[in-house]
Amino acid sequence: MARATYAFVPGHVTVFFNPVRHADPARTGSTGAGLTLSDGVAVTFEPAPETRVVLNDAPVTVEPVDRVLGSLSATGRVAVESALPLGEGFGVSGAMTLGTALAVNAAFDGTQTENELVERAHVAEVRSNTGLGDVVAQARGGVPVRLAPGAPPHGALDGIPAATALEYRSFGELSTAAIISDDVSAVQSAGERALTDLRAEPTLERLFELGRRFAREADLLTPRVETTLEAVQAAGGEATMAMLGETVIALESGLSDAGYDATACEVHPAGSSLCLGRP
Amino acid sequence: MARATYAFVPGHVTVFFNPVRHADPARTGSTGAGLTLSDGVAVTFEPAPETRVVLNDAPVTVEPVDRVLGSLSATGRVAVESALPLGEGFGVSGAMTLGTALAVNAAFDGTQTENELVERAHVAEVRSNTGLGDVVAQARGGVPVRLAPGAPPHGALDGIPAATALEYRSFGELSTAAIISDDVSAVQSAGERALTDLRAEPTLERLFELGRRFAREADLLTPRVETTLEAVQAAGGEATMAMLGETVIALESGLSDAGYDATACEVHPAGSSLCLGRP
Repeated sequence: MARATYAFVPGHVTVFFNPVRHADPARTGSTGAGLTLSDGVAVTFEPAPETRVVLNDAPVTVEPVDRVLGSLSATGRVAVESALPLGEGFGVSGAMTLGTALAVNAAFDGTQTENELVERAHVAEVRSNTGLGDVVAQARGGVPVRLAPGAPPHGALDGIPAATALEYRSFGELSTAAIISDDVSAVQSAGERALTDLRAEPTLERLFELGRRFAREADLLTPRVETTLEAVQAAGGEATMAMLGETVIALESGLSDAGYDATACEVHPAGSSLCLGRP
Repeated sequence: MARATYAFVPGHVTVFFNPVRHADPARTGSTGAGLTLSDGVAVTFEPAPETRVVLNDAPVTVEPVDRVLGSLSATGRVAVESALPLGEGFGVSGAMTLGTALAVNAAFDGTQTENELVERAHVAEVRSNTGLGDVVAQARGGVPVRLAPGAPPHGALDGIPAATALEYRSFGELSTAAIISDDVSAVQSAGERALTDLRAEPTLERLFELGRRFAREADLLTPRVETTLEAVQAAGGEATMAMLGETVIALESGLSDAGYDATACEVHPAGSSLCLGRP
């Protein structure tokens, strides 16, 4: 019996990454590390003859959401409530795609497993060129470290155990597609070096420090982000850039301590999940 | 700086399992499937020169907790609040052990990753003969399916995507150690067959049905459990036996619909996690 179903997927800020392409989109992805956020995306799905996707009550077209619906041969109304903006480095397209996959399977009493739904959402993101590592990180939660690229069972994850308050501040969009389709050798070498160094010292403080080094080495800093990172450090805090948005994320109250308007949240303890009722 | 730290670990009911022994305890474990519960174990750890473990305010000795403290070279006060009884098939020893590992690492600003802490807790359980699959399932959350035995990176997990209400009722203890140390060929063949059949049809209803078949084939049913399972089915519900306790778990209100006093909870959406404050 088709019915309305609900899923919640945490936001995800990539701190550093190394894109890895493969002929198989399920093996394409990125290694790297990031933070999942208690702010995220709540998806409500209701089967219907025509598909309609709305984000915070406004109609929207999000290619990987359409792709994942197609891959599950489903149509219906996808209603998304998001505290986070699309396109600013919070993994909102990945969250919408994974949340849709989970909710659609539940609505039709489907027989996909969690790993299969994560793979479908990951492949939809890879094909749409909208993300390489958000979906697998969002499925895990916490502070995910992507050791090997791709969807399960190809990808491999670990995590930095951490419960902490965070703050974020966005200054605008950067195009994920332009940057991850471009020449990526500087990104790759910086990302690989950062992962090696994080594995030698897997702590939150080291993650932020390596994020700043990655952003400089990969030449991804914008002037506003650079100024903000310097201000947070001058105030004794830890901050780094969200990949890929003109967005800064800080430990605890790092941004407001430095005088910025910022939104507070926490590391999300869990990963994506179905919900019994509206999240 | 040492300080008090907090972790929450969901309860875990194994529905069926196939024990797999290996010379390396990190590769020892079980395949199978189960349900993590929103009822679980909250651990508070405070470093101290002497170790003291209390469960719901009563001093207690739990061998794998002592082992995991030893493996992290830590001593201190482990205070556990548990809604679930020890020894009745809810994975409480695994939850206490994993929660202790997470909280100890955080208290000492340790550099263990999540996977490393899961491995330490899993190995402590295996060496104590108190569990073979609870820890890895509790680290994942949801409705975990254990495809390959052991701690990360050896073990492999998937999950049945499900948000549902549950009920449980315990009639008493069964000795995990006696059963998983015993001749296990009937358990192994029943467990292997159940996993094959669940993978062909990975749904909650099938999980409960295969759990009942496993309990019969492995000859683990007690008279009280058998009577209760029959009563729940007669009332139109789905129930199965918790491995290993004299305990019945039912979908939704299956036990109370059949006239039993039962405790209500839900599938836990997430896995184990550190908490910012007392859970």
